[in-house]
Amino acid sequence: MPHHRTLIDKHLEAWVSALPQGGLYAPMAYLMALPAKRVRPALVLMGCELFGGRTEDALDAALGIELFHNFTLMHDDIMDAAPLRRGQPTVHEKWNVNTAILSGDAMMVKSYQLMAKRPDVAAIFSRYALEVCEGQQLDMEFEERNDVGADEYMDMIRLKTAVLLACSLRVGAAIAGASTADSEHIGAFGEHIGLAFQLRDDLLDAFGDPIRTGKQQGGDLLAGKKTILLIRGLEQSASSGRSELQKELAKTPDQRDVAQMLRTLEELGVRDEAERAIQAEETKAMEALDAIEVPEDRKQPLRALSAQLMVRNY
Amino acid sequence: MPHHRTLIDKHLEAWVSALPQGGLYAPMAYLMALPAKRVRPALVLMGCELFGGRTEDALDAALGIELFHNFTLMHDDIMDAAPLRRGQPTVHEKWNVNTAILSGDAMMVKSYQLMAKRPDVAAIFSRYALEVCEGQQLDMEFEERNDVGADEYMDMIRLKTAVLLACSLRVGAAIAGASTADSEHIGAFGEHIGLAFQLRDDLLDAFGDPIRTGKQQGGDLLAGKKTILLIRGLEQSASSGRSELQKELAKTPDQRDVAQMLRTLEELGVRDEAERAIQAEETKAMEALDAIEVPEDRKQPLRALSAQLMVRNY
Repeated sequence: MPHHRTLIDKHLEAWVSALPQGGLYAPMAYLMALPAKRVRPALVLMGCELFGGRTEDALDAALGIELFHNFTLMHDDIMDAAPLRRGQPTVHEKWNVNTAILSGDAMMVKSYQLMAKRPDVAAIFSRYALEVCEGQQLDMEFEERNDVGADEYMDMIRLKTAVLLACSLRVGAAIAGASTADSEHIGAFGEHIGLAFQLRDDLLDAFGDPIRTGKQQGGDLLAGKKTILLIRGLEQSASSGRSELQKELAKTPDQRDVAQMLRTLEELGVRDEAERAIQAEETKAMEALDAIEVPEDRKQPLRALSAQLMVRNY
Repeated sequence: MPHHRTLIDKHLEAWVSALPQGGLYAPMAYLMALPAKRVRPALVLMGCELFGGRTEDALDAALGIELFHNFTLMHDDIMDAAPLRRGQPTVHEKWNVNTAILSGDAMMVKSYQLMAKRPDVAAIFSRYALEVCEGQQLDMEFEERNDVGADEYMDMIRLKTAVLLACSLRVGAAIAGASTADSEHIGAFGEHIGLAFQLRDDLLDAFGDPIRTGKQQGGDLLAGKKTILLIRGLEQSASSGRSELQKELAKTPDQRDVAQMLRTLEELGVRDEAERAIQAEETKAMEALDAIEVPEDRKQPLRALSAQLMVRNY
């Protein structure tokens, strides 16, 4: 992983420094230079190495996936009217909305310049790229609805977050020439790890130690954001005839009692249920990894990464 | 051409009817169903046939280029806050801005699904797709500036309009296996035809017969839009010490005397100069076509299309 990180950073820096100055390219360079974990490009390299491919053959695709991910952030931030990204002004704030639209478009083209060197890689990438767009569309639709079910929420986070992890691993696997069965296994691993990670993120927002998460405790609940916890909390409240959550949601965000909301979620069993759902996803991810027919030592980096993503900050 | 039109329409209709319902896909289906000339996909097919390729091998790429073109319209209309496209409400008006951003993004992915089946085609396409974004960026920058020169304007319309015609022809040529030299010739043909067409469009807006153009005469001038005519008119006014154009521009659009502006442009020789520039582009286009080493009868469809695009409606 530290080795991957160095390779990715070097490749990314060379790419940024080769960009034309100004115009459309300055916002790309700005966004790509903000500190980030680079999980997706690392997964491309790991997917390639898992099946015995050469790391350097996967570097362009790794960078292409990271460019695509950042393009989605640039456009999502417009749609969400988000002022900050990675602690810095978003592109539409620092420049303007039109520049953020157009620079994002150009960034997707730059991503495809790297992904379309091989038709098999391009085909995998396009399929998942569409799903990422579909996930964002569902996320926006859900904001306008009050009847989003838990299954719909799971489908939305699968599309919006988990599939790009699956895509990264499968792109790496394709470059290494993995079999169809192995490609499906590693894709399943990525998707289940992604779901576990997103659910864990929802749990941490509510029950995490703010000192360790760096976020206001219960920020999503105060904002009335429909995460799995609030969706299941409202479903369980309805079936058990309780009204504490509804009462809190009827207040303005600054009037809500977050401690009361958290207590209710615990009492309704929603916290435990989410923990079990995360464990179920982790189990499925590990089963998929187990099914891949390569020597066990090649799987170690993916097991280490999973463990790292799953750290419980509470 | 009528034959091409039938093939393209059939391929496009099959594509639209295979789209998932609703969500992100409804705006794509809406925009693609609006009546359009389909010049770019026809150029893909003609570029392929010129070099002896099979028409059916170029149909996917032809559709991919038309999808990309419509994606740029969807996003440009947001940036220009345009209410109408092809006489119908724009996507951001009929739905909303966020849907138009996201549906456009997904449309670019759908375009690449068709363009990235061959790495050589994808590479040509990506190069020009970036240039189209750069052209739109320049167009937006020019709206904020009062010192845009004629050379800069020519470069902007080259990027924003002409290069996608060159791209279409070169993609078709690549599918037919044309040589590098021939690919460059057909690209030059497309670029010069594109420039001639855009300059002609500027001239027609000012001097065209409104009954034949279907537009208000001098609409660009009334709006103070910096086309080649206004840019050269102001340059010539400055060097000859005349002030009629500046005086008209100082008024509000509804107070401007368009007949006076047109008279001034004629007297300054700007109309004749633009006619000569168009003829120069047409000559360069024909020279590029002449340089291509294929039997003359294969070039006839491109000569016919050029003549059609160059019709003088005044």
